[in-house]
Amino acid sequence: MTVSPGTTLAGLRERRPLVHQITNYVVMNETANVTLALGALPVMAHAREEVEEMVALAGALVLNIGTLSRPWVEAMVAAGRAANAHRVPVVLDPVGAGATSYRTRTARQILDEVDVAVLRGNQGEVATLLGFDAEVRGVESIGAGGDPAGLARAAARSLGIVASVTGRVDHVSDGASVLSVANGHELLTTVTGTGCMSSAITGCFLAVKRDAPLEAAAESLAAFGVAAEEAARGARGPGSFHVGLYDALAALEPETLDSRAKIR
Amino acid sequence: MTVSPGTTLAGLRERRPLVHQITNYVVMNETANVTLALGALPVMAHAREEVEEMVALAGALVLNIGTLSRPWVEAMVAAGRAANAHRVPVVLDPVGAGATSYRTRTARQILDEVDVAVLRGNQGEVATLLGFDAEVRGVESIGAGGDPAGLARAAARSLGIVASVTGRVDHVSDGASVLSVANGHELLTTVTGTGCMSSAITGCFLAVKRDAPLEAAAESLAAFGVAAEEAARGARGPGSFHVGLYDALAALEPETLDSRAKIR
Amino acid sequence: MTVSPGTTLAGLRERRPLVHQITNYVVMNETANVTLALGALPVMAHAREEVEEMVALAGALVLNIGTLSRPWVEAMVAAGRAANAHRVPVVLDPVGAGATSYRTRTARQILDEVDVAVLRGNQGEVATLLGFDAEVRGVESIGAGGDPAGLARAAARSLGIVASVTGRVDHVSDGASVLSVANGHELLTTVTGTGCMSSAITGCFLAVKRDAPLEAAAESLAAFGVAAEEAARGARGPGSFHVGLYDALAALEPETLDSRAKIR
Repeated sequence: MTVSPGTTLAGLRERRPLVHQITNYVVMNETANVTLALGALPVMAHAREEVEEMVALAGALVLNIGTLSRPWVEAMVAAGRAANAHRVPVVLDPVGAGATSYRTRTARQILDEVDVAVLRGNQGEVATLLGFDAEVRGVESIGAGGDPAGLARAAARSLGIVASVTGRVDHVSDGASVLSVANGHELLTTVTGTGCMSSAITGCFLAVKRDAPLEAAAESLAAFGVAAEEAARGARGPGSFHVGLYDALAALEPETLDSRAKIR
Repeated sequence: MTVSPGTTLAGLRERRPLVHQITNYVVMNETANVTLALGALPVMAHAREEVEEMVALAGALVLNIGTLSRPWVEAMVAAGRAANAHRVPVVLDPVGAGATSYRTRTARQILDEVDVAVLRGNQGEVATLLGFDAEVRGVESIGAGGDPAGLARAAARSLGIVASVTGRVDHVSDGASVLSVANGHELLTTVTGTGCMSSAITGCFLAVKRDAPLEAAAESLAAFGVAAEEAARGARGPGSFHVGLYDALAALEPETLDSRAKIR
Repeated sequence: MTVSPGTTLAGLRERRPLVHQITNYVVMNETANVTLALGALPVMAHAREEVEEMVALAGALVLNIGTLSRPWVEAMVAAGRAANAHRVPVVLDPVGAGATSYRTRTARQILDEVDVAVLRGNQGEVATLLGFDAEVRGVESIGAGGDPAGLARAAARSLGIVASVTGRVDHVSDGASVLSVANGHELLTTVTGTGCMSSAITGCFLAVKRDAPLEAAAESLAAFGVAAEEAARGARGPGSFHVGLYDALAALEPETLDSRAKIR
């Protein structure tokens, strides 16, 4: 499968897929806005009464455990299973796995009960889910160390998914290949929820390239990274950078994206 | 009743009414901020234990089902009934009605159990509530087609309310008259929750003009639309447009608003 | 204990404490972002299943009742008690105390069951908790009148805490001394959640200066106020001011802060 984030982005803007997100309270507005800025349609719905019906209409489902509680976890599992039945690809963002046992346990439960296409997390979160020791301070990965490419490959093999491990350089693997993505900007670490945004964008790309989750995941990170580079140009700090991210995502041209994407 | 959005805005800034909002997680910060930027006081309170007491202090109540679940719906109904008892006008935003049966059913339940003054929705949502077929993709109305003025009038007659149907041109009807509002900007479609913001602003205007819900609803859409036009001037995309909306709402002068409002 | 907000800020950036926040839906993104912009690490976690484990990792706990409901209050109390057991300092923001009896009762319950280090509220909220009459419209304090320095001292004595009463000039007291902080800008009143942000920043400073809660609380308000003054320079209204706040917090230099802080 060819890697061309620009082509996928163009397809996304033509098809405008619905991306169903069951995510945390902190970033709902932000992940909805990146989805919309990119050109897809977000919908947030978490009620047990409607998640199965909603996800059947969607091009992708994004599950994010950033502010989890029991009813939300039940809805995530129900939505995930319905997504599987309808062949809607699922992204899981295991926010804070490793910080508390409840988060680790819940992320594992979702991986057990739902067929997840792409796991998008930081190094500490993904290492935790493989059973490695990692320092996760709240929702930040603090020096998990080690080899992120190897971690992505090991996670993909062990869990039977595409693992998308983000950091200064991102690594995405299906267990066989590893793609690295060297786009992005350090200002991303100064705004809350940029990891969650990258998971939402992963869902957007997956919705239009569901048969190539490895490539879709790497492309989405390149798109987000190039937008971040662009947003950083005019930024005076985290606030103006954050605003610029939406402007840059909306202005992102397929050709520019292809020429600036650093996917190896 | 005269139509003069500027006069109503001036009254709002003088009286600073409290606008109680039981709304969705995605837009709470945003609707609170448009309320405050305009000059009214927002309060978000959804606990069954306090909604009746809170709404008794309010100038208007805004109910929005964007991320509904059972306890929130119960609180909305309880708050709505208390609002009715205290003669506090109620705005309903039936976000996503038509997308899932749970949303359609809940919007109908609120319309049945609460005396709603203004129903503010997009074409697909309002058509759904009248029993027409409409395509609602997530929370977006996709080509509901038809005649929006006729839809507003039919909804107002059938439901016994003021229907405020927003789109490229907005149409507000009390079943007899129809007012159209031709302000706004297409950048509004690139930011999540702008429909919810327009419902919040409807509540603000209704709080100071409760005896003229038709005029209040149309005026509020003109105010939001003129602010959007102003915000679009300096915008580089959805992010900077979004920021500019708050600046423009706060800077909106009654005279400017009256001269630029396109209410027919 | 010396008052030097710059020194505390420098320490915060070096240690990057985790600040656990159980706060309201309206401001979660905003308080997480001020925490991050300042240099600390925010984490939002409210599930009964994990709050005790999470708070044990934290440098401070911030409890905010802005959109309370029963399960959240239970989690706040559980987290607060665990914080006490681990000697993690606790900040309480009694948002809207006085507006409804549920809020007043809940704020009192938390003060009874948790050892709170700093109570950060507006004049109306703090007066309410002392049993005085005060007008709290929604979550805004409307002309509580009286003497804010005296109120802070009385609250500190009566409740056995540090009382941080914010307004045009802020007053912080441990019952013996009163520090006043004269930084800030009136644009702070045009953005929702700036009070909540000041509570989050209070938590950040307390995390690095836990043995001097009086000084930490005053210093944090000076830091927020100086950032607000800086943000106001380039602002065209509430939207751009809000964005500028994050930029200004991140750009705040310890020396500048010490020279501009108006703590008496």
